[in-house]
Amino acid sequence: MTAEIISVGTELLLGNILNTNAQYLSRELAALGITVQRESTIGDNHGRLADFVNEAKARCDLLVFTGGLGPTADDLTKETVAECFGDRLVFDEDEWKKITSYFARSGRSTAPNNRKQAMVPVQGHKIVNNHGTAPGAWFEQDGHCAVLMPGVPHEMKAMWEEGVRPLLLARQNCVLHSLTLRILGGESNLEYKVRHLLENANPTAAIYCKIGECEIRITARAATDAEGEKMCREYAKKFYDLLGDAVYDEDVAGLEETLVRTLKEHKLSLSTAESCTGGMIAQRITSVSGSSEVFGYGFVTYWAEAKAKLVGVDPAVIEKYNVVSAPVAAQMALGAAAASGSDIAVSVTGIAGPTGGDAIRPVGTVYVGAARDGKAYVHKLFVSRPDRALVRARAAQTALELALRLAQGKVPENTEQLSAADARDSAALDKLNGAFFAKA
Amino acid sequence: MTAEIISVGTELLLGNILNTNAQYLSRELAALGITVQRESTIGDNHGRLADFVNEAKARCDLLVFTGGLGPTADDLTKETVAECFGDRLVFDEDEWKKITSYFARSGRSTAPNNRKQAMVPVQGHKIVNNHGTAPGAWFEQDGHCAVLMPGVPHEMKAMWEEGVRPLLLARQNCVLHSLTLRILGGESNLEYKVRHLLENANPTAAIYCKIGECEIRITARAATDAEGEKMCREYAKKFYDLLGDAVYDEDVAGLEETLVRTLKEHKLSLSTAESCTGGMIAQRITSVSGSSEVFGYGFVTYWAEAKAKLVGVDPAVIEKYNVVSAPVAAQMALGAAAASGSDIAVSVTGIAGPTGGDAIRPVGTVYVGAARDGKAYVHKLFVSRPDRALVRARAAQTALELALRLAQGKVPENTEQLSAADARDSAALDKLNGAFFAKA
Repeated sequence: MTAEIISVGTELLLGNILNTNAQYLSRELAALGITVQRESTIGDNHGRLADFVNEAKARCDLLVFTGGLGPTADDLTKETVAECFGDRLVFDEDEWKKITSYFARSGRSTAPNNRKQAMVPVQGHKIVNNHGTAPGAWFEQDGHCAVLMPGVPHEMKAMWEEGVRPLLLARQNCVLHSLTLRILGGESNLEYKVRHLLENANPTAAIYCKIGECEIRITARAATDAEGEKMCREYAKKFYDLLGDAVYDEDVAGLEETLVRTLKEHKLSLSTAESCTGGMIAQRITSVSGSSEVFGYGFVTYWAEAKAKLVGVDPAVIEKYNVVSAPVAAQMALGAAAASGSDIAVSVTGIAGPTGGDAIRPVGTVYVGAARDGKAYVHKLFVSRPDRALVRARAAQTALELALRLAQGKVPENTEQLSAADARDSAALDKLNGAFFAKA
Repeated sequence: MTAEIISVGTELLLGNILNTNAQYLSRELAALGITVQRESTIGDNHGRLADFVNEAKARCDLLVFTGGLGPTADDLTKETVAECFGDRLVFDEDEWKKITSYFARSGRSTAPNNRKQAMVPVQGHKIVNNHGTAPGAWFEQDGHCAVLMPGVPHEMKAMWEEGVRPLLLARQNCVLHSLTLRILGGESNLEYKVRHLLENANPTAAIYCKIGECEIRITARAATDAEGEKMCREYAKKFYDLLGDAVYDEDVAGLEETLVRTLKEHKLSLSTAESCTGGMIAQRITSVSGSSEVFGYGFVTYWAEAKAKLVGVDPAVIEKYNVVSAPVAAQMALGAAAASGSDIAVSVTGIAGPTGGDAIRPVGTVYVGAARDGKAYVHKLFVSRPDRALVRARAAQTALELALRLAQGKVPENTEQLSAADARDSAALDKLNGAFFAKA
């Protein structure tokens, strides 16, 4: 089955809105085994839209539309597609009741043009919208189908999940089962390693790369969910065999979710001491619902005096080694754990840029620290593209990774280690500091 | 002049990448007075791409391509478009030298397929890429033009700004001047207020809405920059007349940038005490380069005990009024200012959800506090859509807004006020707490 995705709206052509609907639908259609051949964005213009629909209908089996279902004169997707599919629209009392009661609940009254939204296909059918006023629509002619959904992303996604995907699955007489692997590490390398596994018909596997991690989504079409699950599990094994424990979790939204769950499982608490990330690590952790079970204290120690006052960094150590140094990262992590009483702490000190770098510590130099059971671990990171947001994001990601390894009871890789006692010892700090310069 | 934007790449059709290039180019073309009629995403398939180019060429004056300029066999935009525009490609020694030296610098050697990237148009011309290996290309036939740029966003944007936009401006024999207004407040209301100003040919004005604020970008085409500046300024006055001081700044990336600059101008420092935003406010402030001049301390006080220990909230006050309450927000802000010695402090305590709400404090209830000169200000926010990320983002935005008003020496609107002395007084706290319940 082949499809095209069509986003309707002049505001998209003006760049006023970022089109996230098309990406969502691309993934979803791929998972259904439907090949998306083209994606288009068209303005709210009857003639141009009608021409486009007639062309696209000849090219593929399924047209997936978003947008243009509103009450204004500009909203003409439904009228235009109905015409191109030889269908017409009729007023639907039930939809109208829904619309008027929706307006009444928010203390407003409907205008005459709102009646437009209650029009539904005669030969095709409406698709219920449980999250807004505009119903969707389904048209069909000569084996070609068109489905129309709202442009507002959360309404569109809900309608897809509740009304459209089930319909497409029923037609294919199958169910869909997905499994998402989350993998730590850089993009191009990883993609290269697994590329031969990404060209499979069923299950399909797709890779999505983010900063410091990638996601591999495996989707099987099968007669039953149990069979689909088995197919996904078997295919996932191929990735595990290749990638080992770089695969850090399954079916989570990100590293912070895995970290919070792991901390809960081990009844551990975490705190943070952040300099150049400025609260980004704490923010990611607390974006997870239920994180208050394991996270109570975060310190944003942007100034040297804050590092001393809040997490007990020795000002002489800053003076001697520089504020961006392994000894400072170690003392920040140990200090955050002590000040908060947490089991684990992570710290970051670095130069996010664009200014502030020098020959010894160019922009992108970051020390990430962690502490557990009276021991500190320090990792040095260098981000070669001097992009402030990127440096901060990579640093936060690395800190979460260190925290996860410690929560799992592992010694984090590529770290130098130091006891809490040695963190106050001049010779030990010299050695720690030197270890990173010897390496470079 | 009419244009179409064409993104080439099967990975886009699979949804592996979010297409941000199309939005960027839409805005840029609109600013140049070029009407974008359609945006399309096409896979890496020679036949389909050639068909598409021939159709699109007949429909409009300018085709703007991104993607498909890489070294692999899949990358065939240049070859295909050359064919459709009656041009051919020739090997360019200079580009080849650039490519080989680029590889040498990163310690790699080129493969035979890298030579593909050094091929440039014969009748058209190449466009220099200062940020990657793939040059762009310009083709022209019978008054129709095609410009090809890389798909990697930062390379594409740089090539657009350095090579393509100047070329289009030179052809139009004009310069471009832009002015961006940043406006506090909700979307639909604001858009309605200014809608008659958004349909202008020159200067153009476009509105982009984000969480809790909007951006209006005014762009003039003129013979000289001075003339363009004057046109923008005159057009901006119409928005100022309508919106008053909801317009908080011009030509900044966001509220945090204005806040940091305002604090610098007034030689003021800021600190934060965050509960439900969990570091998001500090993170936004420190995303601004140079924020270390004004921001030194941030407290993420996720637990009640952290609120007591780090910023001196009285546990009895939490017990009496609930942790999500005006008295707690007031004590957090005053406490953060005291603990850090900052001139201004902001605080947030709320229920981001999805769990934890009740009849008195449903999910989305947030108290935002601020302190300056021994006085606290509290604002209550309610976000009706129970979306954790949205509640946090709105709360952070509101806190930055309060901080800005205090930095400007204004009394923030819609706040209840309390002196530092009264923040320890039971009757005064009762009154503060009661003020928010009387309102609701």
